[in-house]
Amino acid sequence: MTAPARTDAPLGTAGPARPASWQVQAEVQDFYARQMRLLDEGRAEEWAETFTEDGVFAQNVKPEPWRGRAEIAARMRVGLDRLAARPVTRRHWLGMLIVDEGEEPGTWRCRFYALVFEVPDGGDPRPHLSAPGEDLLVRGEDGRLRIRHRLVEHDGAV
Amino acid sequence: MTAPARTDAPLGTAGPARPASWQVQAEVQDFYARQMRLLDEGRAEEWAETFTEDGVFAQNVKPEPWRGRAEIAARMRVGLDRLAARPVTRRHWLGMLIVDEGEEPGTWRCRFYALVFEVPDGGDPRPHLSAPGEDLLVRGEDGRLRIRHRLVEHDGAV
Amino acid sequence: MTAPARTDAPLGTAGPARPASWQVQAEVQDFYARQMRLLDEGRAEEWAETFTEDGVFAQNVKPEPWRGRAEIAARMRVGLDRLAARPVTRRHWLGMLIVDEGEEPGTWRCRFYALVFEVPDGGDPRPHLSAPGEDLLVRGEDGRLRIRHRLVEHDGAV
Repeated sequence: MTAPARTDAPLGTAGPARPASWQVQAEVQDFYARQMRLLDEGRAEEWAETFTEDGVFAQNVKPEPWRGRAEIAARMRVGLDRLAARPVTRRHWLGMLIVDEGEEPGTWRCRFYALVFEVPDGGDPRPHLSAPGEDLLVRGEDGRLRIRHRLVEHDGAV
Repeated sequence: MTAPARTDAPLGTAGPARPASWQVQAEVQDFYARQMRLLDEGRAEEWAETFTEDGVFAQNVKPEPWRGRAEIAARMRVGLDRLAARPVTRRHWLGMLIVDEGEEPGTWRCRFYALVFEVPDGGDPRPHLSAPGEDLLVRGEDGRLRIRHRLVEHDGAV
Repeated sequence: MTAPARTDAPLGTAGPARPASWQVQAEVQDFYARQMRLLDEGRAEEWAETFTEDGVFAQNVKPEPWRGRAEIAARMRVGLDRLAARPVTRRHWLGMLIVDEGEEPGTWRCRFYALVFEVPDGGDPRPHLSAPGEDLLVRGEDGRLRIRHRLVEHDGAV
């Protein structure tokens, strides 16, 4: 299945509110808490497993989206290795979550704010990045949620 | 219906814990995520729709509460227009949510922390405001939640 | 019952995902929102009531864990009194919550990120501390959740 061409769509347009069931909302919250933690623990490959095989990760600060789980894993591995060489800890917070039913059954449109804090060894935490995002989540045949398309827009990018 | 005179009541007194059902808790969380996003997208009028017609918005940094949806919309419009003239993005985070059953059926007392981050174009995010708040939410005849009374207390205000 | 010797276990190892029911997840979220607020309101003794009688509070920045509710209350009272003498407000945020079933029935392993913001009188908020944590929650005979073991690891501690 082709990933929808959402990269050009502006984030944040409210769109029709079709809130997912409360069970799905809780499941999505749990999904993100585990997903973000993988990133902060340097587990690029396990983190990439939370995307579909043909998943897309687009960012407004990158000229091209990352396409497919293999590319997503490889590129995140480079970023995390580079980060691991610095004496800092990063913490990804995701909040202000809105989970709407997607157009296809078994899909969800999830909008969120993300904040990344960086803590230098021996120093105080400081906000490193604010970035709203929007995911298209799908449920696989194994019952697990995965990201088919993610768009993250760094605030303040010029 | 007259808005309760809560403006003088100190925020933060724990009060009796009468947690709302988990369904209502999730609904309230969804309500706030959508509400705060409207603010960050500059939609003052849609944001004001989340108050009741006779809603009140009190803040410890304002001598008088804003009274009624029309005044709430007009005053927030002024604030958002002023903000839009500056090269920054604001993100409202709301968390640490406690939802208790209100004294009247179909009402809820919601307490939360809010944090506002500001991101200058080309710069890093910085915390702009910390402010706990307390809302009286009511369910309208159309089934939607709305704020009848909001009190927000800016931390550090002297 | 003896508190499990978890102090030496590294935080953050993903472990098997055994997500609690959505009802319990919501209950735990509510538990933490109330618990953290007690701390920010200076209520050390009520806060300590959220631990079991034999509860343990371990931190990577302390040579020894605090053992038992009485010690936890007394030590937090000292810390909060010292804080109250300074012209600042503190706000504890807890997020990115993962609630897994514990090994014993009626227990839960909860992992979270915590962020503490400090707001000086007349000043802007600033991040004071980032600290992931892991709790072992148990349900008492009175039906309430309590912490049997808490481990908090301050980021950046050297």
